[in-house]
This record gives sequence, C-alpha cells and structure tokens, in this order.
Amino acid sequence: MTIPILIDTDPGVDDAMALLLALASPELDVLGVTTVFGNSDDIRLMTANALAILALAGRDDIPVAAGSAHPLTRPYAGRAHLVHGDNCLGGVQLPVAPRQAEPTFAAQFIVDACRARPGEVTLVAVGPLTNLALALRIEPALPKLVRGVAIMGGSARASGNITPAAEFNIFADAEAARLVFGAGWEIIMAGLDVTCSPRIAEEYLDRLAAAGNRAGRFLADAFVHYLAFYRSRGFTGACMHDVHAVMALVRPELYTAERVCIDVETAGELTRGQTVADFRGLWNRPAQTRLLTGVDETIFLDEFATRIARLP
Amino acid sequence: MTIPILIDTDPGVDDAMALLLALASPELDVLGVTTVFGNSDDIRLMTANALAILALAGRDDIPVAAGSAHPLTRPYAGRAHLVHGDNCLGGVQLPVAPRQAEPTFAAQFIVDACRARPGEVTLVAVGPLTNLALALRIEPALPKLVRGVAIMGGSARASGNITPAAEFNIFADAEAARLVFGAGWEIIMAGLDVTCSPRIAEEYLDRLAAAGNRAGRFLADAFVHYLAFYRSRGFTGACMHDVHAVMALVRPELYTAERVCIDVETAGELTRGQTVADFRGLWNRPAQTRLLTGVDETIFLDEFATRIARLP
Repeated sequence: MTIPILIDTDPGVDDAMALLLALASPELDVLGVTTVFGNSDDIRLMTANALAILALAGRDDIPVAAGSAHPLTRPYAGRAHLVHGDNCLGGVQLPVAPRQAEPTFAAQFIVDACRARPGEVTLVAVGPLTNLALALRIEPALPKLVRGVAIMGGSARASGNITPAAEFNIFADAEAARLVFGAGWEIIMAGLDVTCSPRIAEEYLDRLAAAGNRAGRFLADAFVHYLAFYRSRGFTGACMHDVHAVMALVRPELYTAERVCIDVETAGELTRGQTVADFRGLWNRPAQTRLLTGVDETIFLDEFATRIARLP
Repeated sequence: MTIPILIDTDPGVDDAMALLLALASPELDVLGVTTVFGNSDDIRLMTANALAILALAGRDDIPVAAGSAHPLTRPYAGRAHLVHGDNCLGGVQLPVAPRQAEPTFAAQFIVDACRARPGEVTLVAVGPLTNLALALRIEPALPKLVRGVAIMGGSARASGNITPAAEFNIFADAEAARLVFGAGWEIIMAGLDVTCSPRIAEEYLDRLAAAGNRAGRFLADAFVHYLAFYRSRGFTGACMHDVHAVMALVRPELYTAERVCIDVETAGELTRGQTVADFRGLWNRPAQTRLLTGVDETIFLDEFATRIARLP
C-alpha cells in the first residue's frame, strides 16, 4: 500500500535529492509538487526547477503548482544562492520542461488534493512553511483531512544554521511555521538534530554518478557547488537535509525519534525562528511532533544511492 | 596559591552546598558573600541564610552584604519555595547567626573588593545576576578588575527548567544576565548542560551525614525536601546545580568544556531568558565563555563528600 504525498519545495540541491528520492520510491505516490520561495525568492525559478526535475525523472504527469513568493507577514531575508548556486541547482542547467505549472495556487492545490482523499495524504514540506500556513487559512479543517506532515526544518537540541538559534526554513517564515506546528496534526520533524548526518563528499557523488543514469549524474554535478559552500565554512562534507523528510516516510525504522511538543519563537531578538521543544512537558500540551534524533547513516546512504539509480 | 573569590548567592539548598564546598576548599579564599533575590524574593531571608551557613562552618569572619531584592527591570517571577522549602533550606532551622550583614550594598561591596585586589578576584555567581549587573553599572571597568566569573546558570544545548528554553537563574533576571554575559570578562558557565549530573539521593545523603560533622548533617537534612520535589517531578535523584560553579574552580580538570560566545534572549515570547550559544561562530564575536559540558561524576561526588567532611 503506497503513501500518497504532496511535496512542497523550494528547489534547491537537497530539495532535488528529496524529490528524486520520492519519485524513485515505490512506497510513495507523489500526487503533486508545490513550490515556495526559500532558497530563492524567484518563485518562477523555483517552479521551473521543480518542473525540470520532474521532467528529468520522466514524470511530466505529476502536476506542479506555484506557491507563495513571500513569507506570510515579513519580508524575505534569504541568501541561499551562496549555498545552492545562482539557479539553485548548483549552476547545472537542466533542459526546460515541456510544460507549465497548474493554474491553481499551491495552497489551494494542497487543499483540493487533501479534500479529494480525506485522511490519506501526507504533506512533505522541505521549504519555508508559508504554503501550508496559507492552506490552513483556506481550509481550517485541513489537519483532520491529512494523514500527517513531514517537515525538514528547525532544530530542537542542535544549534541553528542561519542564526545560532534558528534553522533556515523555519527562520524564513517563523509566523507560518508557528501556525503549522500549532495546527494539531501529526508532524514528523527532520531538523538539524538529524539532517546534519551523514555528510557526503566526492566519493559518494562518484557513486551516484557511476550508476550512469540521468538523475544520478545530475545530482552528482549539482552537488559540487553545494559541497564547495560547505567546504568554505570549514566542513569536510555536506548535508542532505531535505532527503530525510522523505527517507523518514519510506524507511522510518532507520530513525531514532522522540515525541515532543514543538512551538516556534516569532518575537525573539536572538531566537526568532527557533523551534522550541518542551522536553519536560512544562507546557502541558500534546506532544504531536515525532522529532527525529538519529539515523543509521550507512543504510541511509545505501538506500538513497540504490533508489536514485533506478530512475531514468 | 589560593584563588580569592566572592560568592553571590540566593541560599537555597544547592547554594548552601556550594557555599560550604567553597569554605571547605583550601584552594579558595572566600573574601565575602553577597546575597540576591532568587529562590526567594525575601532578601532578608536570603541574607539570614547566608549568615547562618557561615556560622555553621565557623566562619563568622567572612563579611556578608545584602543585595538586590528585585530583578533589574522586571517584576519577580519566582516560585522556588516549592523546590527549596519555605525557608529555602528545606525547612531545616539553623541557629540564628550572631551578627548582621555589612552596611554596604552587595553591588558596591563587590566593586570595592575587586578594586582592592585588581585582577585577582573571581566572582562566583550562583543566583540571578542582578548584583553583578549593578556592579557593572557602578564600575564599568569591573571586567578589567576581576580575574573572571563563574556562573551557575543557563543552558546551551540542554533544555530549560523553568521554561522549555530557559534556566531558572537566567530567567529570573534575563536583562541582568545579558549585561553580564556581554561584559567582556572571562566566564565559566556551569549551566544545565553539566549541572544535571550527577543526581543524588538518600544513599549519598547518608554518606554526607555519616561524617558526623554539623555541615554534613545539615546538608543531608536540608536535602530531603529538595529531593522530594525532584521525585514529585518524576526524577529519581536531585541535581547539585550550584556546586558545579565552585567545583569547576577547585578541580577544573574534572570538567569537559568548550569555548563559545553566549548571549541572552530578553525579548522572546517562548525563549525569554534563554542563553543562546553561537557554536558556529555566526555572530563573529569573541568566545569568552568556557561552557562546561560534562563532569567526572564519581570523582565529583567523592571530592564533595570528602571536603564537606572537613568542616566543623
């Protein structure tokens, strides 16, 4: 029995990895892809990247809907082109997709897809959570209509990566993230607590490329710029952040996790965008987030490479 | 060569432990004790407790100065009598001390003592940091006049204990803590990252009492209420928080540590009073805090018991 999912993304090198892993995983049925600002605030670029990645995988049948170009209430404060390159895919030019996005706005697309299959759909969000917050405003009953939400974002015990307290995706729209974490649905949180391991470098890229398929070669090429960014910050390898939100659905047993209530700081001077975890139950609120805390790195890397090799 | 110290404290069961450890340690020369609100906002009680503990140890020669009864800018928001008992010493009545506190206000007392021995004094602060912040306002050059500061407070990677993000002492006066962490002096931070281990229970209290001296029997008695509070929250043993700020001076080699820049959130809705640690150097500010991250629990417990047994 496959898990029907929608992927909300700001592609992005690791977004591309996550998207391709989902397409390569028989456990998942990708019903659609929605795009959001994040790694760039050029929503047309984000959408073009999503369409191009789907085309690369031979999946022009999967609908794409463009979403929000801006955070819910604040101005955009990104700078991720340093990480992902000018086109957000490490400078690698994919063929332009032979089609355009749906006419429906992403948040409405999400609501419609969930209404069509009540209780079945899992939302996989690997960018800022603006589209999900807007979907909650369009359909307040959305939490009851979905099966759950898997998020790459935040940091419960690890430090942040855009500020000492905040992770990039949550910092990019803290107000939206607060709505999403407070909506009462089941959340899997793949934050920096787990996504900073494993780190990969040339050896692993060679392995991806060695399969000889388009998808593997593309990821190996796109990752070069991304890896160089990490090197410039003193790291020997780079993280596969977004991939974990997908892998946690297809191979949940690879992860250690704990249940905790998460809320998002929106007012802090130093801590804006921090995901605050109530490990001691001081808030007396339901622990609706499954916080991922560790992963079997070896199996994770094997699974990812094996699955990507199945794609065209 | 002994280290001259001033101890700023809101006694408190674990404060009493820290104070007695300092008095029992030949490596330290306790020049004075200053008191501050914290575990209670009854500054007369805090001061009476400090005087009584010194009397218990036969050290009526050490001057005591009463300090601030209130946080720097906000109202008191404590509730620590649940933890420490009505008299903050677990309900154990010590004989009333045969003397009174100095006429000098604690912050002025600190400044005077540091001016008298420039570059020599270490400030050991195991309560809210209000007196130290006031001392910085009285003498802005104080950071150059002291050798360093050892603080029990905050939490860098661990969660908080008064809110999910904040530790009690820092939360009690976040504005003061921000001034202290930003003053540019060398800080040893014994926060919840290290002070939650070891946890002790009856067996260890029996060991303290078995030495037969007043100090050991008092601590064993005073700890009973404190331990019961921890039990009521589901813990099998209780923390010796404040003790670590003193032990880190007399046996620094027992601790693992890392250098990091710490700042304090004063504006957050969820995170007010959080000590934010910049582990990745994102702030480009000097890493002036030696954050304690671990302790050799066995030697720590042996050292504490052995030293306390030396007291009257």
